[in-house]
Amino acid sequence: MSLRVSAILERKGVAVVTIPRDAVLLAAAEALSRHSIGALVVSDDGRAVQGIVSERDVVRAFARFGTAAVKRGVADVMSTDVVTCERETTIDELMAVMSQRRIRHVPVLSDGGLAGIVSIGDIVKLRLDELEVENETLEQYVSGRS
Amino acid sequence: MSLRVSAILERKGVAVVTIPRDAVLLAAAEALSRHSIGALVVSDDGRAVQGIVSERDVVRAFARFGTAAVKRGVADVMSTDVVTCERETTIDELMAVMSQRRIRHVPVLSDGGLAGIVSIGDIVKLRLDELEVENETLEQYVSGRS
Repeated sequence: MSLRVSAILERKGVAVVTIPRDAVLLAAAEALSRHSIGALVVSDDGRAVQGIVSERDVVRAFARFGTAAVKRGVADVMSTDVVTCERETTIDELMAVMSQRRIRHVPVLSDGGLAGIVSIGDIVKLRLDELEVENETLEQYVSGRS
Repeated sequence: MSLRVSAILERKGVAVVTIPRDAVLLAAAEALSRHSIGALVVSDDGRAVQGIVSERDVVRAFARFGTAAVKRGVADVMSTDVVTCERETTIDELMAVMSQRRIRHVPVLSDGGLAGIVSIGDIVKLRLDELEVENETLEQYVSGRS
């Protein structure tokens, strides 16, 4: 039995921090810092996913453009080839795609609109909870036999 | 049976990208970008861990100082309260500490010196490999019974 993305959204909620395409990179850095998150979904209406801008994108722009980075537009540095998932996607599939594509954040879509976001940290947290359940089940099994 | 940090180091190797304490933040951003990694160990001699500087630290400095961030020193923004592990640390323990502390990179120490670094991505990759082994074992078990 493999858990699904919906199990993560039930715990963390479906809120997603978005930023419009025409924002400057400094605003993106401020939003990432303020919310202590690793990526923002780029969306003008909060529903359509136009791109994703991660801490890594900001660091790359900073390395490349130096002081001029503050005024670069989000649209210049965001990834537009966004990997998304659905509520029904299994965690195993999600782990595989994150590992292969070396990404840490995957927006969740429902009816074509933004319905959450899952991070690699959320997956590790879920896996830890699973481990606790496994240990409890094992204890019950062992005590049932003895 | 829980895997240990040594299992990850056997796959990825023990190389760690370090940066000296007196480097400027722009140099840190360049090193993070060039190596496509999420954190640098701050170390003057490549052995003693004096701090860690992550993509998140760079983004925070960028948000806080704007253009002046390029000239800030690594020592000003690094975390000095570094969580480390050993080769014998179990992956389950490591996942728990990463999740609790909300960190993605943990340097590995051996005899007090730097002996590798483990990221949250490395753990997910290992977990995927484990899943494949579990599935194979399950298949053998099922075919053995039929």
